[in-house]
Amino acid sequence: MSEDLVNRIKELESEVERLKTELRKRDTADQACTERNGGSKPSVTVDIEGQEDGGSARKGKKRGKERPFDFSVHPRRHVALRLAYLGWEYKGFAVQENTDNTVEARLFEALLKTKLIQDRQSSSYHRCGRTDKGVSAFSQVISIDLRSNQFSGGIGVIVPTADGASVKSKPNSEELPYVKMLNRVLPQDIRVLDWSPAETGFSARFDCQSRTYRYYFPLGSLDVSLMAEAAKRYEGTHDFRNLCKMDVGNGVLQFQRTILSASVHSVQPCQAVSADPYDLYVFEVKGLAFLYHQVRCMMAVLLLIGQKLEAPDIIDQLLEVEKNPRKPQYSMAVDYPLVLYACHFDGLSWRREAEEVGLVLNTLHQHWTQNVIKTQVLRGMIQGLQSSGEVSTPLQCWLMEGTRQRNYRPLLERPCCESLEARIEHYVKRGRLEREEGENGEEALHRGKRSKHSHNPSSQTVASGATQPAQ
Amino acid sequence: MSEDLVNRIKELESEVERLKTELRKRDTADQACTERNGGSKPSVTVDIEGQEDGGSARKGKKRGKERPFDFSVHPRRHVALRLAYLGWEYKGFAVQENTDNTVEARLFEALLKTKLIQDRQSSSYHRCGRTDKGVSAFSQVISIDLRSNQFSGGIGVIVPTADGASVKSKPNSEELPYVKMLNRVLPQDIRVLDWSPAETGFSARFDCQSRTYRYYFPLGSLDVSLMAEAAKRYEGTHDFRNLCKMDVGNGVLQFQRTILSASVHSVQPCQAVSADPYDLYVFEVKGLAFLYHQVRCMMAVLLLIGQKLEAPDIIDQLLEVEKNPRKPQYSMAVDYPLVLYACHFDGLSWRREAEEVGLVLNTLHQHWTQNVIKTQVLRGMIQGLQSSGEVSTPLQCWLMEGTRQRNYRPLLERPCCESLEARIEHYVKRGRLEREEGENGEEALHRGKRSKHSHNPSSQTVASGATQPAQ
Repeated sequence: MSEDLVNRIKELESEVERLKTELRKRDTADQACTERNGGSKPSVTVDIEGQEDGGSARKGKKRGKERPFDFSVHPRRHVALRLAYLGWEYKGFAVQENTDNTVEARLFEALLKTKLIQDRQSSSYHRCGRTDKGVSAFSQVISIDLRSNQFSGGIGVIVPTADGASVKSKPNSEELPYVKMLNRVLPQDIRVLDWSPAETGFSARFDCQSRTYRYYFPLGSLDVSLMAEAAKRYEGTHDFRNLCKMDVGNGVLQFQRTILSASVHSVQPCQAVSADPYDLYVFEVKGLAFLYHQVRCMMAVLLLIGQKLEAPDIIDQLLEVEKNPRKPQYSMAVDYPLVLYACHFDGLSWRREAEEVGLVLNTLHQHWTQNVIKTQVLRGMIQGLQSSGEVSTPLQCWLMEGTRQRNYRPLLERPCCESLEARIEHYVKRGRLEREEGENGEEALHRGKRSKHSHNPSSQTVASGATQPAQ
Repeated sequence: MSEDLVNRIKELESEVERLKTELRKRDTADQACTERNGGSKPSVTVDIEGQEDGGSARKGKKRGKERPFDFSVHPRRHVALRLAYLGWEYKGFAVQENTDNTVEARLFEALLKTKLIQDRQSSSYHRCGRTDKGVSAFSQVISIDLRSNQFSGGIGVIVPTADGASVKSKPNSEELPYVKMLNRVLPQDIRVLDWSPAETGFSARFDCQSRTYRYYFPLGSLDVSLMAEAAKRYEGTHDFRNLCKMDVGNGVLQFQRTILSASVHSVQPCQAVSADPYDLYVFEVKGLAFLYHQVRCMMAVLLLIGQKLEAPDIIDQLLEVEKNPRKPQYSMAVDYPLVLYACHFDGLSWRREAEEVGLVLNTLHQHWTQNVIKTQVLRGMIQGLQSSGEVSTPLQCWLMEGTRQRNYRPLLERPCCESLEARIEHYVKRGRLEREEGENGEEALHRGKRSKHSHNPSSQTVASGATQPAQ
């Protein structure tokens, strides 16, 4: 058995190698590869105001050949950028040591290529939320210092002291078209929606008022009214250690989180609960901040309830950590239906480039057209099989990770994971954590050198992690 | 342990998919966006009745290692098999010299692996329709001789004369579970639906009464009632040389085809014409046989009519080959929305293995779940952008191949393709065609050695091509 599996693994690994080589070949051959959405790859000519060599900047062009760009003569501006991306093809938002395939990696390539920043370190970059492999975002917000053309100042603008500055000064001129500049060089499945001036010191991470996640699912044979009722039990401030992946290795010790609202409803606005198993529903949850894998664990439990495998009050029990201090072992819900849908901030005024929004809509329409048609092709086959009678295979729920058990075992009768205390000891012993006093006076830990997780250090001065959601 | 292995396999499989997707994006000039369905791979353990080495048969296993299988002691049975497949990841149905990635290639791998045939040549194989790269089928039918266990005979059964036979004889026993055997070894996106006994000499190609194709599309700003009215003009027997790719190189000289019905309607049964641009419609066309790219050309013209770029009577004009003998240059509709939905035969009695149909439905449900959720993720983003106001980018039609012109040029004012006569001379000169008398007394040509197209020779004794649809 396991020998077969090993063989299969070898088989697949060589296949992966073969394909990677194939891809490299084409890359080096530098094929003009127009993406399905007709999107221009980062290799198209960059069109950047006030950038002499921008017009000829090209992917693969040796940086050495470029004339050094003098950032010191340009103003810098602290801004917030709002991003939408389809996370399905990426290994997550945050850069990681073990892969280059992250949204953040693509984003910084674009920021560097457009000369909007000199380097990440000096850009005072913060992200609002981290999204996991396969998770999408409609409203990921980052704060960062960008090159500006506002020599006469403005919100968040730092004017260079250099003498050359005065010469270029154009009072009341339009700010650089940040959205246009970035969308020209970003992959089609990552789009900048708009930007906002921000006071120096504004942080997309620490100044975020709340985050809203959406998790979409088909009705199937789920009892959505039961799920809706159950979801309400998540609201309020609770200890979610049994409904997340305890990220102790990253210094997360405090699992109290506040859920402002949690609901389950049809995606059709103001539609009564429908009976068609092929209708779509959404679990929408709004909170101040979230723990690692929290929404997907919350969703997993809701799906068990919807399948009548657990009663709604299982949620209360899981939230009662005195009674149930250790998380029972269960699989979370799959990644691709999850979207970081909104992030809420005070005092930002988003600026859109109307033409750009139209282009983004076109891109989304192209993606949507492909997906909706393929969905209908499948639906047509399903209807064809069903109409030919004698078959009544209900639409099951295919959203749980791992393999499905034949006999269901109630959550509270399952083996449990390690307790929080045991985990802490584990990491402290291995020097992955060092105890110390955190920001809000809470006990906090910093990741040691041997920490397993690898995120952007600049955003890892981990306190309780309470302000750093991670899905 | 083995759970880790399984996870590793899943991980690798998704990586393989990702890379394949990446490669496909670069391959295709069309705007194919593959949110690949997470179906498992053809590499599952084979479980086949009456096949000693089936249990360990695996993709990549050297045939040399297998014990020779004595086909001579087994009965053979002429049958029809009905297949459903998602064509999006394949280069078409028919085997080709220039690629291994065809549905037919996977099908024959499965037939050989299960020892249902000894080799393709001796299997008296015929296919009902050919489908192009990216085109799917819900009801592709093939006729073929398969290994049987019916030693006491039956419809289409040929009992071996070998003495060994009598020993194994089990009167009235169930036929081999063809559907189960093949679905165990086929890729998840290719499924056998059912099979039927067939009289010797029955041909899925020549005995097919009619074929039905479906082409799905979103309403957008298309005038579907205009399209529906226009579609009717395709009905009847016409010369479709201006609505296909003239496949003269394969000996297709006769372009009269009979369309039994052509309609445009909502995919929701009995729904009134809706106004929601995100609703789905279908062009459904039933005919005796079709020409190469015929449906996609017919659809392209309908889309031009729906966009009010052409009047419905453009169809009559294109069908009037005396007045318009040469095809105006235009792009056909993209491939992925097209499905060979049904093939009609007299005298077949399809046999289903109920359990198998349930498994096929589960597979389709998994594919569907992935696609419908990703579609909704995109829809949610589109709604989010639209609700934030000041944008009104309508849903355009993204189903035409090639790049969109800014200024539309009416079909009849465009440059034309070569005339039929010129093409014939072209191929005869180059020795790709040899004139001779065809089956129905029509003039026919056989492909010469230097023929460009490469299909299964056994099905290429091309007469008028009238019985060989090719989409």
